[in-house]
Amino acid sequence: MGDPAGIGPEIIAKAWAKREAHDLPPFVAIGDARAIERVWNGPLVRVTSLDEGRAAFATGVPVLSVEDAGDVVPGAPDTDGARCALHSLELAVGLVRTGAARALVTGPVSKARLYAIGFSHPGQTEFVAERFGIAGENAVMMLAGPSLRVVPITTHVPLNAVSSLLTIDLILARGRATARGLTRNFGIEAPRLAFAGFNPHAGEQGALGREEIDVIEPAIAILQAEGIDATGPFAADTLFHPRARATYDAALCCYHDQALVPLKTIHFDEGVNITLGLPIVRTSPDHGTAFSIAGKDMAEPGAMIAAIAMAGQAADRRARSALAQ
Amino acid sequence: MGDPAGIGPEIIAKAWAKREAHDLPPFVAIGDARAIERVWNGPLVRVTSLDEGRAAFATGVPVLSVEDAGDVVPGAPDTDGARCALHSLELAVGLVRTGAARALVTGPVSKARLYAIGFSHPGQTEFVAERFGIAGENAVMMLAGPSLRVVPITTHVPLNAVSSLLTIDLILARGRATARGLTRNFGIEAPRLAFAGFNPHAGEQGALGREEIDVIEPAIAILQAEGIDATGPFAADTLFHPRARATYDAALCCYHDQALVPLKTIHFDEGVNITLGLPIVRTSPDHGTAFSIAGKDMAEPGAMIAAIAMAGQAADRRARSALAQ
Repeated sequence: MGDPAGIGPEIIAKAWAKREAHDLPPFVAIGDARAIERVWNGPLVRVTSLDEGRAAFATGVPVLSVEDAGDVVPGAPDTDGARCALHSLELAVGLVRTGAARALVTGPVSKARLYAIGFSHPGQTEFVAERFGIAGENAVMMLAGPSLRVVPITTHVPLNAVSSLLTIDLILARGRATARGLTRNFGIEAPRLAFAGFNPHAGEQGALGREEIDVIEPAIAILQAEGIDATGPFAADTLFHPRARATYDAALCCYHDQALVPLKTIHFDEGVNITLGLPIVRTSPDHGTAFSIAGKDMAEPGAMIAAIAMAGQAADRRARSALAQ
Repeated sequence: MGDPAGIGPEIIAKAWAKREAHDLPPFVAIGDARAIERVWNGPLVRVTSLDEGRAAFATGVPVLSVEDAGDVVPGAPDTDGARCALHSLELAVGLVRTGAARALVTGPVSKARLYAIGFSHPGQTEFVAERFGIAGENAVMMLAGPSLRVVPITTHVPLNAVSSLLTIDLILARGRATARGLTRNFGIEAPRLAFAGFNPHAGEQGALGREEIDVIEPAIAILQAEGIDATGPFAADTLFHPRARATYDAALCCYHDQALVPLKTIHFDEGVNITLGLPIVRTSPDHGTAFSIAGKDMAEPGAMIAAIAMAGQAADRRARSALAQ
């Protein structure tokens, strides 16, 4: 459910209401049932197990309450809510670890509130990765919309720090995880990876910067030698229009905004964050808690619906692939 | 016409063919008439003055030939072609200076070829600015599509150089020129300027970089004190989706790709480069020579059509505004 004072409860309920139109797999919300009741008038079923939740899915939003989040006020996050979000995440991870659930979909949280109660991971992604014994840097964030998938090679760091973080090893790790992740989660047998350049016009053969020549090109050559269909570096500004997007399965970008600007420009209400490199499927709507509109019935559930649908499809593919082996 | 071996001749002819559908004002191509004949079978009229060109516009593409560009081979730029492009530009600037023409639309050129014949300006923009006695840094590039206008505060420099170039003075100069330019060329009385942050999430109050706090916010405060409707800095990734775009008239971006990625992602075939800060109207299609498809009848004339239409509209506004004074 994420932070109960954010839009998580509302978009979960709205996703449930549209479950048939979007052919969503059964899901169970984990968090505080009252947080949903406060922002939604539809049916809700309190359950105590995933099996109960699955059985109740046709009747109302199934909610597994982890704890009392206190007096939740939409738009006003507090410590109780942050604790509820963290415990919900912990329980959800446990249910996926044991195989009771097929996939994990996380709602938006307030990092500032989580830090205030002692949470020490950069975000939910790294927390989940650690629970599965995966180093945080090997859990790769991919943002996916209907017509574009992007992987930021570096993420939440000052833009001036990117050049020194951008190493051949890091690009290789991201490239390999992306290629594997596209096959495992999206069923793409021979994924096509397009790499964006770091500088304007991808550096113009060194005239506008050397990151392309010194780091990106050598990394692409190594990936190609490994049999990965990697191309680039391409000028970022001509990499994201419709005809360009048709030529690759994922664009790997040097920094946060290079990846997120095109993704959110064209898929603002339907972007999904899917973590590659984990033994399980984990997705998330690609937006924040939106405290400013929480409780006002203004939240768009599109990204949550897409995150649930993508989680179900990826879990199906993994199950089929495991059976075939 | 730009480089006669690029797609300039083809998109000029195609724009002429669509002059009625797009209600284009009369225009005269300046360059080598044979470069158009080589890629186009429609009517063409050789003229020796703009008056002749205007009279011939209904009959065929009017072309004022400046010189023999030699044996033009589409896709194979050479020195003769570069010289033709430069002399075409020189003549066109002269015709606008004298008032014989109302606006200048430049076709795409090969900078490498121009440098080879001794051209010493960074691009056509700076060349034009100098001819009008404007310092190159005061001629501001705005890229405009049907639903988005962007101004890159810095342009063709390595990304790592941007932070040190991004000064309060530079942001003020770009902000003022943009506000004035929106009024003069687009008739927007009280232009709304939205500034993008430099770092991911606009720096998160300094946690992800300080350019916002140290430079962008103070510059915005000064612009506001001058009465300019300037807002931001905003996280770049949430600044370009349709609802966000509706809240401003131009987005001012810290670096090339931050501006050009969203613009070309949504308006790849219709982006116009308009130079603000000049005493005349100058536009250009926002794409290059595209040598690889020149002569193959594959070039999309959309951006050239938009550049001609925008030039005509901006010239009309300036003329009305001058009359009103």
